[in-house]
Amino acid sequence: MSSNADVKKLDRSYVFHSWSAQDLIDPLPVHSGEGSYFWDFEGNRYLDFSSQLVNLNLGHQHPRLINAIKQQADTLCTLAPSFADKTRSELAERIVNAAGSDTFSSVFFTNGGAEAVENAVRMARLHTNRRKVMAMYRSYHGATSTAISLTGDPRRWANEPGDSSVVHFFGPYPYRSPFYSSSDEEETTRALEHLNHQIQVEGPNTIAAIIIESVVGTNGILVPPPGYLEGVRKICDTYGILYIADEVMAGFGRTGTIFAFQNFNVTPDLITFAKGVNSGYIPLGGVVISKPVRDTFSTRSFPGGLTYSGHPLACAPGVETFKIFEEEKILEHVQQLAREVVAPRLEQLKNTHDCVGDVRGLGLFWAIELVKDKNTREPLVPFNPTPEENAPMNALVAECKKRGLWPLTHFNRMHVAPPLTISADELNAGLDIIDQALSSVF
Amino acid sequence: MSSNADVKKLDRSYVFHSWSAQDLIDPLPVHSGEGSYFWDFEGNRYLDFSSQLVNLNLGHQHPRLINAIKQQADTLCTLAPSFADKTRSELAERIVNAAGSDTFSSVFFTNGGAEAVENAVRMARLHTNRRKVMAMYRSYHGATSTAISLTGDPRRWANEPGDSSVVHFFGPYPYRSPFYSSSDEEETTRALEHLNHQIQVEGPNTIAAIIIESVVGTNGILVPPPGYLEGVRKICDTYGILYIADEVMAGFGRTGTIFAFQNFNVTPDLITFAKGVNSGYIPLGGVVISKPVRDTFSTRSFPGGLTYSGHPLACAPGVETFKIFEEEKILEHVQQLAREVVAPRLEQLKNTHDCVGDVRGLGLFWAIELVKDKNTREPLVPFNPTPEENAPMNALVAECKKRGLWPLTHFNRMHVAPPLTISADELNAGLDIIDQALSSVF
Repeated sequence: MSSNADVKKLDRSYVFHSWSAQDLIDPLPVHSGEGSYFWDFEGNRYLDFSSQLVNLNLGHQHPRLINAIKQQADTLCTLAPSFADKTRSELAERIVNAAGSDTFSSVFFTNGGAEAVENAVRMARLHTNRRKVMAMYRSYHGATSTAISLTGDPRRWANEPGDSSVVHFFGPYPYRSPFYSSSDEEETTRALEHLNHQIQVEGPNTIAAIIIESVVGTNGILVPPPGYLEGVRKICDTYGILYIADEVMAGFGRTGTIFAFQNFNVTPDLITFAKGVNSGYIPLGGVVISKPVRDTFSTRSFPGGLTYSGHPLACAPGVETFKIFEEEKILEHVQQLAREVVAPRLEQLKNTHDCVGDVRGLGLFWAIELVKDKNTREPLVPFNPTPEENAPMNALVAECKKRGLWPLTHFNRMHVAPPLTISADELNAGLDIIDQALSSVF
Repeated sequence: MSSNADVKKLDRSYVFHSWSAQDLIDPLPVHSGEGSYFWDFEGNRYLDFSSQLVNLNLGHQHPRLINAIKQQADTLCTLAPSFADKTRSELAERIVNAAGSDTFSSVFFTNGGAEAVENAVRMARLHTNRRKVMAMYRSYHGATSTAISLTGDPRRWANEPGDSSVVHFFGPYPYRSPFYSSSDEEETTRALEHLNHQIQVEGPNTIAAIIIESVVGTNGILVPPPGYLEGVRKICDTYGILYIADEVMAGFGRTGTIFAFQNFNVTPDLITFAKGVNSGYIPLGGVVISKPVRDTFSTRSFPGGLTYSGHPLACAPGVETFKIFEEEKILEHVQQLAREVVAPRLEQLKNTHDCVGDVRGLGLFWAIELVKDKNTREPLVPFNPTPEENAPMNALVAECKKRGLWPLTHFNRMHVAPPLTISADELNAGLDIIDQALSSVF
């Protein structure tokens, strides 16, 4: 039997961690997980309000997902992309039907979200014969070269210069409007005017695609105000620009619909997905492709690929995910929890804590935005804080962990993104801890 | 029970295939696999001389790999990279020890080879504070933006412009020397002079890294002539350039050693790997990092990451791979088959077929280069052939498949890259088929 100390020692000796200074981290060793919880090697239990990296939509160790993996492992673990595979084909069919088979034709599978974004951009550029891609500030699209160039947060900076045909624009953010608006309606109007204006001065005929997280994830759970995505779709149609919906984090039930764009009255041309497609039990991502884009590559070769495109063992828990969504009524459960638990309780937090400036979200995808002052809306910690500046958030995180909650924070926000299978009782217990931690620290 | 027709129909309706014109492909549906063989849904059996995409080093459905996946699935399927995981740490330790713990410190895990290359380049640029990366013509390094820019084959072309800080150079290719040499020794000398010359005119202080497949894979199984890699290492040391060994295809026993560079007297600064690390049973790749490069990120944050870095379920068959290599004496088996079966039999093919111009390789990684004329060495089909120009190769492939062999061809070459677990009898049977097919077609 291993201990926390053993595992941590081996980790610190041999594992290089992402997004980290290697000598300044102290990773928690994890021994096991079940449903909404995970345990370290000393039996300490944590309620997972981050769903790991917002990928564990069906929770830790779902017996049906494990079983699907085992069955596929006994049948056929791996197969090159050039063959035809039954499980891969079944998953592609289900995804196309979920996205809308009137519009969408087929699925190109990748290992994760970054590669999905890379390939969606590749398709858009070749389909339009244009190079530029527009992406939002306050966004994350992955860490391979073009994906990190598209990313509109500080993780891009140390990787610059990157893809020279990426242009960033400001999206809507009603609580901190870049457009001096005072209502959601005004924010939508001005954000669309801004985008349209920027397209004019960039050159409409030079732009292949606009990529947007349907609900901005790590950078703030920014739900587009009514009419915004519909307006983007219209602008794209006007100029022959493709609309790529990045659903890597928001997709597969996170917002109460299979795809987050389905909360709005829009249909994109390309959809990128990963994470929730199989809860990350095996690396998998992909691009859902509209019929016109697919037809661009009917007799012309698509110049992209990867060894594990459509990996059977990764696709098996994907097929099972759709079955679980149907049979366990996951979407209805998420909608009910959002309506009956999260929305009212976060509203209550806002009303009872001076440090809670804004709460917002959809489904089980919410942000609590912390401020120094509710009137000025000055953030509790600045954008891209130094470790010293981040002290108040670190204190809040420590307080949550002490009480058995594993929280997800980013800059001055705490996000609420538990597994979609969480019970109302577990959800309430986690929100109790956040409530207590806020009272305790501030 | 499904049929070939059912599965193909579903595939053609919903699956978008890599590197392909979607209406011009006819993928074989695969039902199952075992060891060196796989079967379609009609019971037709194929001897897999391509190890799928040269990833299936331990063959189809190895019972111990399947068992390792099932056991890990019961324990913990997935875990975010920020935690410490026992299986991940154990695999990292084994990889560092296999690469050489005097030089190497730790492993950064990715989902596959392309991301490994992206991150190795990211590390090299930040470590050296230089931008340019030099890569060979006739190479493949993956299909994300920087990886495809590094690639020195036609797959790059449709993706240009790409990373503007990539520079290509010619590597050694004794059979078709770009340097007018007439011996391996002369090829080494001139290839190193060429590289050194190009570095002078590019500016030695602008170059972060040189990336080289230790044995060039898809682009020709080009084994570096004696002294070449040693000379590259010396040039890198002279100018403070990092040497990245791309071992995605050649690593994990393919050439008879764990890493292919271990056939030579060199140690790189960074090693990229994927495929053979777990035979591709679950997507996995990574970068093995030297101590100095790791220390660059000791108190400075590494600006890269991915949701599934160090995925426990992917790492479990990786740990088991090392155990199988030891207990089944895989490296010794590969070396013996190379020496006693492949080398003599391919030499014999060269002596008995007018169309076989050259045979070369290491371990179970060989090329048969086909020519129109042994004296002029004119290739049987040109570089990057059109479908029409490729007709002779297509005929050869069809003849092999008809006889139950699934071959791997590229341009005017047939490669021999079966699972490392293949028996001498199976290997001989496959080489018999190639022999017969060559006689039948030419």
